[in-house]
Amino acid sequence: MKKLINSVDDFVKESLEGMQKAHGDLLDVNYDPFVVFRTDAPVQGKVGVISGGGSGHEPMHGGFVGKGMLDAACPGEVFTSPTPDQMEWATRKVDGGAGVLHIVKNYSGDIMNFEMAADLGKDAGIEVESVVVDDDVAVKDSLYTQGRRGVGGTVLMEKIVGAKAEEGADLASVAGLARDVNANVRSMGLALTSCTVPAAGSPTFELGDDEVEIGIGIHGEPGRERIKMEGADQLTDRLTRPVIEDLGLNSGDQVLVFVNSMGGTPLAELYVIYRRVVQLLDEGGVQVARHLVGPLITSLEMQGASVTILRLDDEKTRLWDAPVHTPALRWGV
Amino acid sequence: MKKLINSVDDFVKESLEGMQKAHGDLLDVNYDPFVVFRTDAPVQGKVGVISGGGSGHEPMHGGFVGKGMLDAACPGEVFTSPTPDQMEWATRKVDGGAGVLHIVKNYSGDIMNFEMAADLGKDAGIEVESVVVDDDVAVKDSLYTQGRRGVGGTVLMEKIVGAKAEEGADLASVAGLARDVNANVRSMGLALTSCTVPAAGSPTFELGDDEVEIGIGIHGEPGRERIKMEGADQLTDRLTRPVIEDLGLNSGDQVLVFVNSMGGTPLAELYVIYRRVVQLLDEGGVQVARHLVGPLITSLEMQGASVTILRLDDEKTRLWDAPVHTPALRWGV
Repeated sequence: MKKLINSVDDFVKESLEGMQKAHGDLLDVNYDPFVVFRTDAPVQGKVGVISGGGSGHEPMHGGFVGKGMLDAACPGEVFTSPTPDQMEWATRKVDGGAGVLHIVKNYSGDIMNFEMAADLGKDAGIEVESVVVDDDVAVKDSLYTQGRRGVGGTVLMEKIVGAKAEEGADLASVAGLARDVNANVRSMGLALTSCTVPAAGSPTFELGDDEVEIGIGIHGEPGRERIKMEGADQLTDRLTRPVIEDLGLNSGDQVLVFVNSMGGTPLAELYVIYRRVVQLLDEGGVQVARHLVGPLITSLEMQGASVTILRLDDEKTRLWDAPVHTPALRWGV
Repeated sequence: MKKLINSVDDFVKESLEGMQKAHGDLLDVNYDPFVVFRTDAPVQGKVGVISGGGSGHEPMHGGFVGKGMLDAACPGEVFTSPTPDQMEWATRKVDGGAGVLHIVKNYSGDIMNFEMAADLGKDAGIEVESVVVDDDVAVKDSLYTQGRRGVGGTVLMEKIVGAKAEEGADLASVAGLARDVNANVRSMGLALTSCTVPAAGSPTFELGDDEVEIGIGIHGEPGRERIKMEGADQLTDRLTRPVIEDLGLNSGDQVLVFVNSMGGTPLAELYVIYRRVVQLLDEGGVQVARHLVGPLITSLEMQGASVTILRLDDEKTRLWDAPVHTPALRWGV
């Protein structure tokens, strides 16, 4: 295992130290327990929006902390759910009197630990709502998950819902919008290589030199099928068609297309994929109104990509366009 | 070779098609010859700033085309210099009557072809200045290069010089600033893995499971030494100390620190490195006033990182902060 780390045990802490040094104007870090939070938290009268999950998916979630997106993020060890005390600490930290929304990706550990934290928050008199993201159309009931997994749609939800909270909407509206985003977003990914979790020291899975895992999860969970390598267009179709179908897209719909790198795939290849996704949508009369291309929800150094499509309406488009200032996403400011 | 491409021959073209589809609000693409250019080019009365080089380093340079940075970028085939007709086309396209600056990384092919393009531009009555970037302290006279190689400093130069041109400065001032940036920026990188150039089909070099190449070039050119794997702090010191020394940094200096991924290194590891660079500078009383952390000048899927330090003054800081709107860098707008 070759990684730019000092030790397995210090990796997450030292990475957070680097984030804090780099982005101290936007965020601060609590080290016991690990929480990344907006420097101006709590914002009085604003719904606090928090998320969290295993580390190794950076920039998600810590890179989305800042004005117009998350108030706090709770990073677990690599590919390991954060503990309830992290989410409890974050919930208390960001509560500005208007309640707190928990955005939870659908992994059993995350669900359980966020639930405990929500209960602890409620015990402390804080209004807490939880929304589960489960946008991965690849498989149901896979490793770590009952039902569908939460993947790329999380990024889009955090941006859109964060903007809604920033506008001053109440907790019910913010949570309602989050559920609406989840109902209108679908994703699917593939892997060309595995990644290596530092604590494990060897690749999570083995993939032949000519093989691709279609429907991979962000922790290397098995997908739908393992096939022989194909061209980018064929592979893109294998991701995009199930997404389009599951979303029930129709001619005239407006969408946001998000092409994501699993970490080790070059940007130039993402654009090849993006080009093909747009071609497919064009064929069906679907208009690509917004886009996002880059490594936003990753699996360490895994080579691969995922395609996420979100059906837009006027409100979601407006909130997507709203100013955001985080380490990973920034515009309008 | 597993890559998300359709064919070796179509890779650059299809990647550009994706960029154009994604960022059509900012840039347009000419396909014969390949040039990425601002949709509003030429901007009358503004110095045009162009750059170019082999593909495979994305987002550099095409991802830096837009308001406040480059007017055009000329992508060659992967790791191959663009041809003079590309730079000539770009020069003509972006000339708004105030002349054109060529930002050229120090590789023999780039130097030669930009020179020919400059001559062709001058023959057409366009004022052209050329500035060479040679910020890599690792080695002199390596593969493809006489003198030092141009690496991460290029990104910073393009931002700062682009802002100066956007303000309406004349060609001599813009070129003078570019040379000033080059005199105040140094870089060094390392690789944990090779990358595979699509047309070659196999890794550019071999590196043992426990080896690191210190001083790697962005095309996989050999560096200073090949050593056994070490911790991130030790490796970071090996990159940063030569940069600090070569730059002659003194206590009280203000700098911009840029920690870059060669493509396949996770963001979380970049922050571990950034943290250590800041520690080293702190020890010497050097103030880190600005930062950039991410994959900005890459070598396809290569795992590794580079450290670039730019000595700032008031003007460079102001121009760094100036609004920029490109696919890869965006703030203030």
